[in-house]
Formats: sequence, structure tokens, C-alpha cells
Amino acid sequence: MSEIHPVVLCGGSGTRLWPRSRKTMPKPFLPLVGEETLFQATLGRAADPALFASPTVVTGAAHLSHVEAQLGGEASIIVEPEAKNTAAAIALAAARLPEDAVMLVCPSDHYIADVPAFHEAIRAAAALAREDYMVAFGITPTAPETGFGYIRRGEQIEGGYKIAQFVEKPDLERAMQFLASGEYSWNGGIFAFRAGAFMTELATHRPAIADAVSRSVEKGKSEGARFHPDAASFAKVQSESVDYAVMEETGRAAMVPVAMGWSDIGNWHALRDAREGDAEGNRAHGPVELVDCRNVLADSDGPRISAIGLENVAIVVDGDEVLVTSMEGAQKVGKLTGAASQ
Amino acid sequence: MSEIHPVVLCGGSGTRLWPRSRKTMPKPFLPLVGEETLFQATLGRAADPALFASPTVVTGAAHLSHVEAQLGGEASIIVEPEAKNTAAAIALAAARLPEDAVMLVCPSDHYIADVPAFHEAIRAAAALAREDYMVAFGITPTAPETGFGYIRRGEQIEGGYKIAQFVEKPDLERAMQFLASGEYSWNGGIFAFRAGAFMTELATHRPAIADAVSRSVEKGKSEGARFHPDAASFAKVQSESVDYAVMEETGRAAMVPVAMGWSDIGNWHALRDAREGDAEGNRAHGPVELVDCRNVLADSDGPRISAIGLENVAIVVDGDEVLVTSMEGAQKVGKLTGAASQ
Repeated sequence: MSEIHPVVLCGGSGTRLWPRSRKTMPKPFLPLVGEETLFQATLGRAADPALFASPTVVTGAAHLSHVEAQLGGEASIIVEPEAKNTAAAIALAAARLPEDAVMLVCPSDHYIADVPAFHEAIRAAAALAREDYMVAFGITPTAPETGFGYIRRGEQIEGGYKIAQFVEKPDLERAMQFLASGEYSWNGGIFAFRAGAFMTELATHRPAIADAVSRSVEKGKSEGARFHPDAASFAKVQSESVDYAVMEETGRAAMVPVAMGWSDIGNWHALRDAREGDAEGNRAHGPVELVDCRNVLADSDGPRISAIGLENVAIVVDGDEVLVTSMEGAQKVGKLTGAASQ
Repeated sequence: MSEIHPVVLCGGSGTRLWPRSRKTMPKPFLPLVGEETLFQATLGRAADPALFASPTVVTGAAHLSHVEAQLGGEASIIVEPEAKNTAAAIALAAARLPEDAVMLVCPSDHYIADVPAFHEAIRAAAALAREDYMVAFGITPTAPETGFGYIRRGEQIEGGYKIAQFVEKPDLERAMQFLASGEYSWNGGIFAFRAGAFMTELATHRPAIADAVSRSVEKGKSEGARFHPDAASFAKVQSESVDYAVMEETGRAAMVPVAMGWSDIGNWHALRDAREGDAEGNRAHGPVELVDCRNVLADSDGPRISAIGLENVAIVVDGDEVLVTSMEGAQKVGKLTGAASQ
């Protein structure tokens, strides 16, 4: 079995994890769960040389210094001239890899508790990718989440299923139906493709994106481990997600179901759940005293947090910002003046 | 009608209002409600020269600089060599005043919304004090508070009532009975006495305290507006509250009922209630953004507070301390490590 090529997409800003995640030090580069940063943990999950080739990291100039500081090993870095969503980011990597390379596409800012389960799913996804399936990892849902897209499974195939349908973020009622039916998985943004097959599908369904990306790679320049696609060519790329541009268009969409303790760490609620709690369900980090508190996340980078009588609340102190939010309110953090105006 | 002599007791530490109230800058000297500090407002309520003589402030060396900085007018300052509770503090002032002076004894860290009602009660209390009654102000209760002592009224007399009974802090069930009965008032620690009558009662019921205080005053030294009682004599004074030492012992205890929007600002819950709220009942002070919050107090001396989805919570940022407490938990603030270890 040939190696699998990790492709790590390092874009998102993580404004819902403000004030810890800031424009200048965003979510992927913070040690939000455990000692490693989310980016380091993403690389670490795809570092076994028996299974993986060295990774390709697709990022922007703003994040480049963080990427290089945290890489810790050999990697190719593709520096996007501007952010053009996931179809273009994946295409940049696909165009730079050998046609027969199997790519494992991963966001850089997710958390996975059960790495062996992830590796098992990777093997199944890689086998399907070698047969030119466009493979999504379908995360087995554990709650009626309304913040994720869903994938409905179709016909069973060796190692997985064909995809019957992609579903946009549902309302709570539909999310509960999805959970009850057992036919739906979360779309976690993790994919496997054969590089040549991905470019062929993209050229079929989004020829303009495929052309512009190919041209920006042809005219691009290497600088050590960095590769700079041609900015003028890349500027013409249409910004579109891989879900829309390829997954919903192709006749060869497949999915591999996996239950692996996955979280997108999408807000302070999700982060609380990903961290291990004490007997009262509290997660304290930094100088913190909690009295009569349950399921409270308290996280300070300096000042002491003292809290009494709270439940399901997150308290985050970062520099000159103090955030206190209910778990229900955590979705709104990105719209706070402090988060939006940085 | 002769003047009334305000006697302001400036002792308490206010640890339940930590972290805003600190050992080095305690509660009376902070502008907790409105622009003035509680101490300044206390003086201001007894400043009308038509009614009041210049005040006597009884305080300790630790608070002296705050007292003198905030006085803003003529006053006698008695500097206690050490804290010996309210019986001794009041006796120091009584021993320094003319025998026929009517004293209005006030804590320095309470809040009174309705000053005209207070003045009306003062006139009634002063008239009773001139007849050598030991007069307590009985605050008409507005809730079944378990944090205050209660006074049960007895026989009606001109301008007030004799006191039938002093009751220690009750449990909730008894507090509800007290509230329902209409016979009970809160003991707010505000009193009126004729100075000579107070010393006579003290000499009758606590001769040792009266002797030691009298000796410390005889041997004391004036220094401008300051008076320093003799430390060696004062060291022998037994530490006891005026309630125990005089009010519960005397045969001439009287009370004047008064409803005046009083609060002891005893904790963040009480402070929230004393401050005026916006349409959602929130009280914001400093750089604060509140989203989906109700009845939240948010108070920062610098860093921005951003809060979402909270109800009946106090958030206080002071220097390197961040306090977040439910209103129910506010009573426990003084026992936090940060408050107890300063």
C-alpha cells in the first residue's frame, strides 16, 4: 500500500473562540485541548511514516510564521496569495502532488479523541480514493447539532457507502430526525481523494477553478519548503467550498463512517466538552477558584478568576478582555464588538 | 431645637465586595452607588447646618488617610488605637461630646435612597434621645432577609415605639414570619443617643468598658482635628457591639420605624439592587457589552467585559482579579481565597 499524503488546510480565524483566539494568534495555533496546539495535533495524527508521507500545509501569508514555528518536521507549504475557500485550497495541493498520490484533507483546527479509530477510517477512505471515489469522512453524530452539515448514506460499497445526499445545517427538529434515523453523519470537512481524480472532477464540474488553479501553480515559485502560487492567476479563482464544487456534483461521492470523538471546537461550548472535566464537570485553566460551580469552563492567561454558584458558563480572560457566556450563548461570541472589531 | 451631632463609624472592611473593596481601599471610600463614595454620602446626609453640628468620625489609623482625603469639611476625627467594636467606638464619641449633645450614630458604608424620610426619622429619634431613650432606627423590611438582625416593636410612645425584643439573624422561615407580621424591623446599626445618657447606660451595664474608654479619653491627645485616645487604656476595652452592651440591656430601648430605601450594600447582590438598572435590569459600569443578559451587574476598572446569555450574575474586574458570582453566591465572596488572603 502506497503512502497517504496529508493535506492540512490552515485557514479559519476562529472568532467564536475570541478572546483567546485572536486575529494575530488564531485558533489552530493555540493549545486549546492538551499541551499541543490544534495544528500540531493535526500533524501528529498523520505523522506515522508507515502510513503517511510528509504533509502539505495550505495556508495564507498571515498564518505562515505560526505554521513554520509549529511544523516541527519536513513539510511542503503552499502559501495562498488570498483565501479562496476549500475547493481552490485542495486543488492547489492536488496540482502539486503526483497524480496517483492519495490525499487526506484535514482542517487544522479540529480535535479527535480516538486516533486509532481515525486511522482505521483513513485506511478505508484511502482504498476508496484509489478507486477514484471522492471520499468524505462521515462523523457519527452524538447530538442533534444544528451547526453542521449532514451526509445521508446510500448504497453500501466495500469499506463505506455511496453518498445519497448532502444536507445543509438543519433546524433542531430535522437534526433530531437525522439522529434518530441512523442514516446521517456529520460532514466534518475531512476528505480523501486521489490527486489526479480530484483534478479531473474539478475540471469537469468547475473548469474555471481548475484552470485558474493549474495556471497559478504552473507560474508559481518555490522558495525552500514554501511554494507561492502566482497571485494574478489565483485572483481569478472563484471562492467555493469543496462540498459545492465537487462533492455535490460528482457521481462518485462516497463516505466512510467513523466515530472518533471528533469536535470542530467551534465555540467555547464545544471546547468545554472536548476538555476533560473534574468531578463537578468544571474545566479550570490558569489561576482559578471555583465554588459551588458545575460544568464551568474557566480559562485565564494571567488574572485570577474567582467564581461562585455558576453552571454551564464559560469565563475566559485574555489580556484586556473578559468574556463570560452561557453555553447557549457561545455561538454568538463571534458577533461581540470585541471579536468583530479586532 | 439644638443641633444633632453626627457620629460616623468608619471601620468595616467590606470583604464581601472584594475585589473592588480591598484592604487598602475598603468599601466606605469607594463610589459604589453614584459619584460620591459611601462615606461622602453618609456625611452629606448629615450636613444640613440647620439640623446638624459638624460630624465626629471614629476610625482607625489604617483608614485615616482616606477619611481625611474625603472629609471635605470641618470634623472631629477620633483615631482608635485598635478596633474594639461599636460599643467602644460610640463611647469614645460620647465621652468627647457635651453631655447634652444628641448623637446620630451612622455606619459609614450604607446607602439611603430617600434622604427626606431619613431626616424625618432623625427628628423623631432625636426627640426620643432627648428623653434619654436609647433609640434604634428600625428599617421597614422589604424582603425576608436572613442577613440582618431584627427589632420587634413594643408599646407605642410619642414618635416611635419601645423595643420589645432584639432578634439575631433568623432563618428564612422565621424571616418570612417577621415580614408577614408587620411587627419587625431590620436593625440597620443607626442610633440616636444623648451623649450623657449613653455613658450612664454603658456605666450601668458595662462599667469596665465605660471606665476604660473614659480613661483613654482623659489621657488622650489632640493633634489638630485628630484626637488620639490613650492606647494603653483603650487596649483594656472589651470588644462588644452596642446592641449587646447597651441596647439589649437598657430599660429605655426605643425604635423609630423608617422606610427610606436603605441598603447596607452588604454584598454584590445588594449593590446590584441599590444601583439603577436599564430596561433589562442590567447595571453596567466601565467598558461593558451585554448580549441577552438580564439583571446582570458588570463592573470593570479597565479590561472590557463581554457577556452573553446571563441572568442574575455579577461580574467584577479589578486589577488582576476577576470575580463572577451568582446573586445567591454573593454572600460567599468574602471567603474566596482572593478576598481572605489580601
